[in-house]
Amino acid sequence: MVTVIQDVREMQRASGQLRMTGKRLAVVPTMGYLHEGHLSLIRLAKQHADLVITTIFVNPTQFGPGEDFERYPRNLPQDTRLAAEAGTDYIFAPEATSMYPEGYRTYVNVEQFDRMLEGKSRPGHFRGVATVVAKLFATTKPHVAVFGQKDAQQVVVIQQMVRDLNFDIEIVVGPIIREADGLAMSSRNAYLEPDQRKEAVVLYKALQLAQERIQVGQKDAARIIRDMNDLITSRSSGKVDYISIANGRTLEELATCDKQRPLQVSLAVRFGTSRLIDNIFITD
Amino acid sequence: MVTVIQDVREMQRASGQLRMTGKRLAVVPTMGYLHEGHLSLIRLAKQHADLVITTIFVNPTQFGPGEDFERYPRNLPQDTRLAAEAGTDYIFAPEATSMYPEGYRTYVNVEQFDRMLEGKSRPGHFRGVATVVAKLFATTKPHVAVFGQKDAQQVVVIQQMVRDLNFDIEIVVGPIIREADGLAMSSRNAYLEPDQRKEAVVLYKALQLAQERIQVGQKDAARIIRDMNDLITSRSSGKVDYISIANGRTLEELATCDKQRPLQVSLAVRFGTSRLIDNIFITD
Repeated sequence: MVTVIQDVREMQRASGQLRMTGKRLAVVPTMGYLHEGHLSLIRLAKQHADLVITTIFVNPTQFGPGEDFERYPRNLPQDTRLAAEAGTDYIFAPEATSMYPEGYRTYVNVEQFDRMLEGKSRPGHFRGVATVVAKLFATTKPHVAVFGQKDAQQVVVIQQMVRDLNFDIEIVVGPIIREADGLAMSSRNAYLEPDQRKEAVVLYKALQLAQERIQVGQKDAARIIRDMNDLITSRSSGKVDYISIANGRTLEELATCDKQRPLQVSLAVRFGTSRLIDNIFITD
Repeated sequence: MVTVIQDVREMQRASGQLRMTGKRLAVVPTMGYLHEGHLSLIRLAKQHADLVITTIFVNPTQFGPGEDFERYPRNLPQDTRLAAEAGTDYIFAPEATSMYPEGYRTYVNVEQFDRMLEGKSRPGHFRGVATVVAKLFATTKPHVAVFGQKDAQQVVVIQQMVRDLNFDIEIVVGPIIREADGLAMSSRNAYLEPDQRKEAVVLYKALQLAQERIQVGQKDAARIIRDMNDLITSRSSGKVDYISIANGRTLEELATCDKQRPLQVSLAVRFGTSRLIDNIFITD
């Protein structure tokens, strides 16, 4: 049994009452169009809490002009069924007009990260992410919140925001879930033409190449990145937006991938009008 | 009996446990050096809640370069005694290094208000205010928060932030408390030389003049402001920073103070190196 709530006040009342009964609440923020990646996060949330609230909201403030806000796939009836099957107790699915009513003007910004990698490629994206996550936290009042490693920089931004703003919320990160051929699951995979879908496996192959090189002790980050780039461009029609080898905590890019761990190898590649991201987190 | 807490985690635990027992919590955020104005807010908080948490923190991020952060008056032992006498149950008095540790980088900004009146005169001020209040809310977990009308624009900024970020917190506003001669109480009054202290009464006289003019139907805001300015400059050494007649909700300045209510008449005046603010809220 899943309860679907659209109203902010109603969600706040429900969460407040559940907390008063001593229940431990987890929230899994999503933009819907749920796939196995999201469902794994819901199952993980259930391991960390008594009750799971899955939020489904395609957040307009994290899309830039010309990005895919309008065409982002939506299917609330299917999401409700899938989320319930995975163990969701409450779905919070607000309307954009109730989240951002006329006169809305408050934004949370996690500085510096907005100028790196995804933040650099998508101006305003992480300001929108931090803002909506702060709002979803205030509305769902969780003890624990679960995010996917797929959006690696988002994880770092949220962890920093939670620490800085003193949110009393535990952040749990679930691993990337991949298709059989290695492509990271993403709602945006639905955009791919059949040929692009086949080619897109090269993203994970490039990340695996980097991981192997680093694990055998290759230190020159620029050389690894060049080889990843060559692999992607030679085996697909993908246009590389960025490839990065960075400190896994600060996301500062590294010239040498020496003994420093964790490392975050990440990339963004465009296939036609679709833009895919993927990453590998190397702790050794 | 008052409990003084300095540690963020300890405050969160205490508030969380109190909430679980069904107690209604109020927070009164202050920068300390408590005077009758603050104490009236603590008493008001007690009317709205079972337990009152008074926070005492001179917040560095709301002071600009060259402002009075260093010399802002501090007296925690006296504050503790006064706050307890007024009905405070918990004092939260964190260190700046625990509120803003190394690497801190998250800020809450309430747009537009940062370009008006105090926001215009004090760049970054309201970003610092919104950020620290969001942090204090996350740490003290109140049902209700009490602010003073003395900082009129701060009230509007906080109300907007609470609405926008979906904080489930009731905002209560306490009236300005004045000295016998009309000067609004302020920790910054301690900066005034004896002569300046006597002259400073002209701020309230100017506000009263505006109120009388508006109540008898005078509509020309510029003329009222000119007369207020003349009164202040003719009767004191004060240098006017701004005088404003604005919509009491949006703080947009008005050319004509017609039937629109509420009105906010506000001013900032410098006496030597000290800067005082005062206001009158006209609802009719």
